[in-house]
Amino acid sequence: MTAPRFSFTLHATDGKARTGTITMQRGEIRTPAFMPVGTAATVKAMKPEAVRATGADIILGNTYHLMLRPGAERVARLGGLHRFMNWPRPILTDSGGYQVMSLSELRKLTEQGVEFRSHLDGSKHMLTPERSMEIQRLLGSDIVMAFDECPRADRSRDEIAASMELSMRWAQRSRDGFNSGEDHASRAALFGIQQGALHQDLRRESADALTDIGFDGYAVGGLAVGEGQEAMFGVLDYAPDMLPADRPRYLMGVGKPDDLVGAVERGIDMFDCVLPTRSGRNGQAFTWNGPMNLRNARFAEDTAPLDVSCTCPVCATYSRAYIHHLVKSGEMLGAMLVTEHNLSFYQALMQAMRDAISERRFASFSRRFLRDYLHQEG
Amino acid sequence: MTAPRFSFTLHATDGKARTGTITMQRGEIRTPAFMPVGTAATVKAMKPEAVRATGADIILGNTYHLMLRPGAERVARLGGLHRFMNWPRPILTDSGGYQVMSLSELRKLTEQGVEFRSHLDGSKHMLTPERSMEIQRLLGSDIVMAFDECPRADRSRDEIAASMELSMRWAQRSRDGFNSGEDHASRAALFGIQQGALHQDLRRESADALTDIGFDGYAVGGLAVGEGQEAMFGVLDYAPDMLPADRPRYLMGVGKPDDLVGAVERGIDMFDCVLPTRSGRNGQAFTWNGPMNLRNARFAEDTAPLDVSCTCPVCATYSRAYIHHLVKSGEMLGAMLVTEHNLSFYQALMQAMRDAISERRFASFSRRFLRDYLHQEG
Repeated sequence: MTAPRFSFTLHATDGKARTGTITMQRGEIRTPAFMPVGTAATVKAMKPEAVRATGADIILGNTYHLMLRPGAERVARLGGLHRFMNWPRPILTDSGGYQVMSLSELRKLTEQGVEFRSHLDGSKHMLTPERSMEIQRLLGSDIVMAFDECPRADRSRDEIAASMELSMRWAQRSRDGFNSGEDHASRAALFGIQQGALHQDLRRESADALTDIGFDGYAVGGLAVGEGQEAMFGVLDYAPDMLPADRPRYLMGVGKPDDLVGAVERGIDMFDCVLPTRSGRNGQAFTWNGPMNLRNARFAEDTAPLDVSCTCPVCATYSRAYIHHLVKSGEMLGAMLVTEHNLSFYQALMQAMRDAISERRFASFSRRFLRDYLHQEG
Repeated sequence: MTAPRFSFTLHATDGKARTGTITMQRGEIRTPAFMPVGTAATVKAMKPEAVRATGADIILGNTYHLMLRPGAERVARLGGLHRFMNWPRPILTDSGGYQVMSLSELRKLTEQGVEFRSHLDGSKHMLTPERSMEIQRLLGSDIVMAFDECPRADRSRDEIAASMELSMRWAQRSRDGFNSGEDHASRAALFGIQQGALHQDLRRESADALTDIGFDGYAVGGLAVGEGQEAMFGVLDYAPDMLPADRPRYLMGVGKPDDLVGAVERGIDMFDCVLPTRSGRNGQAFTWNGPMNLRNARFAEDTAPLDVSCTCPVCATYSRAYIHHLVKSGEMLGAMLVTEHNLSFYQALMQAMRDAISERRFASFSRRFLRDYLHQEG
């Protein structure tokens, strides 16, 4: 029996929180899912087998970075991204739309797409919905994201509305472009991205446009761009409800552990964020009692593991004192160990949320988690 | 049955080349042995279990670095270097004598020792034979090196002679200092270091002085300081023969793969060098066909492994094209993978030499190795 191209089965709900399984040809994805970010065909400072050992079912690759280096056509000639980087399980690729606006130089946005210069060598490139679909096909992506524009949160309502409408026209062109790659479309899935920033009516309009086109899953885009947790949760109080309940909902670029818990509570199924990997390289460890800066001198002779209740290989073996020494000394192993722990912690948090939803005790889980993590009053 | 404090058994000789086993309480060391360098309580970019998986029986730690950060007394309070860094097997520590002259600032050399300022924070420290022995004891070293002065090769014969004589007086003080740490001396070994640079009569004088004092093993010091391979081999044509045949002979800070083969041919049993790890971080891979710079554009679409005949986990999994991409992109995983391969290659080379000596075919092994590695005419 061949695995289906894409199916999403909900196992349990608890309030708005949901747990389920996405099944694809390259493997299953347990939801709520956290996807480690493998920007340039590597989850930084980690071997892929170690990423898998943390519990990750799927990772994210960045179209913008990979199209510039090593190049999508090159990755295709080398057998696709999975073989190139030794990650045989599902990969979600973003569309390049977000990074092209935040990282590239001399951007020119038109109805057609975005013309820009590479931040690496100044070379000129064009990203359109059609080219984004082609790049993601060349990479061999399992979950392809529609090409959109992600406006800054501080733009006016009129600008947000015009940008959202452009993104919806690009969503249709993404759908058409994706479908035209027939062999790839028979194995991969395509997600649409809701825009509209903090405006409920625009979010509704965007959700309706996407649902009319029809996607395998739906992302809530345009959040985690500086609006703050309260405003983000304000949007998440209604935005996921606008999206089809039988499809996965993906909150892009989020977030802190308490962001994840609050978003799952509001009906989100998938996440990606650089925070556990980037923090790992900066010596910041996540624990059930909040984040911990390993540079702090108070850890110099602390023989406890990073997190006393963590079962990851790092916590089984190394002391805070040793990791403090590595981080202070600028040793690569410090980045490697804290990254591995952080990704393990994020996956343990996802598993704890899946268990709590299955057992219909998410509200009490969330209350206790936030009490311990944020040191809030219970 | 408890393992002996230190024993050295020769299994076979072939010409001057020897293969044997050093047995210590923390494990066996197969000779000829290559010791990866773990300067600051980490073999850079490697987990210790991966270092062991390359075939390493013993690693080296640097007294100079560890005394400054995290500090020898701190390592002792944390249970010693083995526990601190999760390496349960033998560790050889150098005396600090070499690094204090090459890395520290405002050095003042007297009969008593060396006063210097830390290259990290300018703090003032003093290293003497007695303090070096104490630091190595606090670290919990298995093989302790006598404190010596390693002069630059370009110094006059009189200066070299005076320096060697000072090192021999320090060797006696090292022996006395080591013996005074009774509990540690009952578990650890002490090696003396021959000096005398390129002067055969001074090498003889130094060897006699060390043999009179009596050590568990003997190092050939003062080489690999810029004199070149020909001059080094010139010294190695006679220097090892001056040292007791029933004790291990250790060539400090060497070297390139062809240096190792030539030194084993001349009777050396142990080596350490930063080359495989430092090169790994610079994208230079060692192979049976010579070194390979992974930055080179010709590897951009090369699907072969780093070395086609290598059995290490890196070569089993990753292409030159992928590693080229990682190195070009400055990704940590590039340093991790090339380092792991390089350490595996060095250990495979040591195993190949041990096998060739056991089977008494070292001359033909050496000829074929150099032909392939240096692309010499066979």
